[in-house]
Amino acid sequence: MKELTIIKIGGAIIDDEIALKKFIGNFIKINGPKLLVHGGGKMATELSDKLGVKIKMHQGRRITDADTLKITCMVYAGWINKNITALLNAQGNPAIGLCGADLSILSSVKRNTEPIDFGFVGDVVEKNINIKQLSYFLEQHITPVIAPITSDLTGQLLNTNADTVASVLATALSRNYNVKLVYCFEKNGVLNNSKLLETINQEEFIALKKNNMITDGMIPKLDNAFDALEKGVDQIMIGHAANINQLIQNHGGTRITKN
Amino acid sequence: MKELTIIKIGGAIIDDEIALKKFIGNFIKINGPKLLVHGGGKMATELSDKLGVKIKMHQGRRITDADTLKITCMVYAGWINKNITALLNAQGNPAIGLCGADLSILSSVKRNTEPIDFGFVGDVVEKNINIKQLSYFLEQHITPVIAPITSDLTGQLLNTNADTVASVLATALSRNYNVKLVYCFEKNGVLNNSKLLETINQEEFIALKKNNMITDGMIPKLDNAFDALEKGVDQIMIGHAANINQLIQNHGGTRITKN
Repeated sequence: MKELTIIKIGGAIIDDEIALKKFIGNFIKINGPKLLVHGGGKMATELSDKLGVKIKMHQGRRITDADTLKITCMVYAGWINKNITALLNAQGNPAIGLCGADLSILSSVKRNTEPIDFGFVGDVVEKNINIKQLSYFLEQHITPVIAPITSDLTGQLLNTNADTVASVLATALSRNYNVKLVYCFEKNGVLNNSKLLETINQEEFIALKKNNMITDGMIPKLDNAFDALEKGVDQIMIGHAANINQLIQNHGGTRITKN
Repeated sequence: MKELTIIKIGGAIIDDEIALKKFIGNFIKINGPKLLVHGGGKMATELSDKLGVKIKMHQGRRITDADTLKITCMVYAGWINKNITALLNAQGNPAIGLCGADLSILSSVKRNTEPIDFGFVGDVVEKNINIKQLSYFLEQHITPVIAPITSDLTGQLLNTNADTVASVLATALSRNYNVKLVYCFEKNGVLNNSKLLETINQEEFIALKKNNMITDGMIPKLDNAFDALEKGVDQIMIGHAANINQLIQNHGGTRITKN
């Protein structure tokens, strides 16, 4: 099978124009089919503040009311997605900016309101991925740039965790490709007392989580990573966006391993 | 040649959830390849107000500073584009939401700052249209839903008049298709003293414009319409979004005619 590289870019890199442009320059160097999933950085939070919309979070996941849905959709699928896509195309890397609603590439189901009502939040599962259409773009050497906004079967837009989007896409596409999945952001990987862990397995993750050594946004990221590894993704790394070309070679960050 | 229907939807319809859903229900009934270009309605203006960003207009065209670019991109390419696309897909009409930056389908050139500095505004010309990619979507029975945001060759996003986007797309695609172009909004067509004009030619337009009987947003709409007619688009109508299925049959609005 062909190799496919899926990069999730998030965190402060998205907000830092210079770091983002540098990341894009490195991303373009990756050979073969590739796909980019992005988060939203702080911009959605800043816009919410300016508009007086209060942010609610639960264990690193945003609670999405109607105003927050509009804000996240505008920031993720509008500004960030189109900026990244325009920069990729300008540098000669054909790219198309999509969200889950486009061609129903990622249909989702609104999350149950119990035990916590996350509002307009959608969960995606592997069977809801339009692999055929994504494969067409990949075969045409087109990079899909994917914003973490999805829609349900009624056409309701839903906010979706970007780490989950990357994980589910990697899992679905691992049927047709040998998939490398890299989560990158502004840290060097998974840290324990500021020390980089070169590898982490699920047992270690559970122990660190129990001792509150791993918190907030890193929890869903690792949950998603272990899920993808379990379901057949070949190689998963977490690391700094500046090291993307090392990370895809399996070093320079934290490697997710089986027990 | 095959027929292609290009609809530009704009004005108050975009802001009216019920009218928009009704429009989408009618749009889906159009047979054969079709493409939808949308404007932004009042939402960008409302968001600008909330954020304290002052709106500047010149003859129906928005002047776009850096903040306004961000707002229009978020509203047009984010919220409106993805909502329409999600609704189309949910109703069984495969659709993909795009802006000009995606696959460089509509590259633009930043407008000269003389005689008026419109800021981050891009002008598109026919040769900058990626006809090959758009034709692929059309042949696959996929409806491109296009937001009027474009980018230049450096990857700078630019705000672009949606009527012009529709006109230039119609012109470019008229090489491969018999194109019907319909501009629709919340009015019945081109009005003269509240009376609907069933047809209008360029001489009549110039006379009405001179007497200030046609003003504001209708001026660029008609400029674009006459330009498209001149350059080979088969049939151009302006009318109410509720009458879309009549308009494509050449009645129920204002028909643009040659002198």
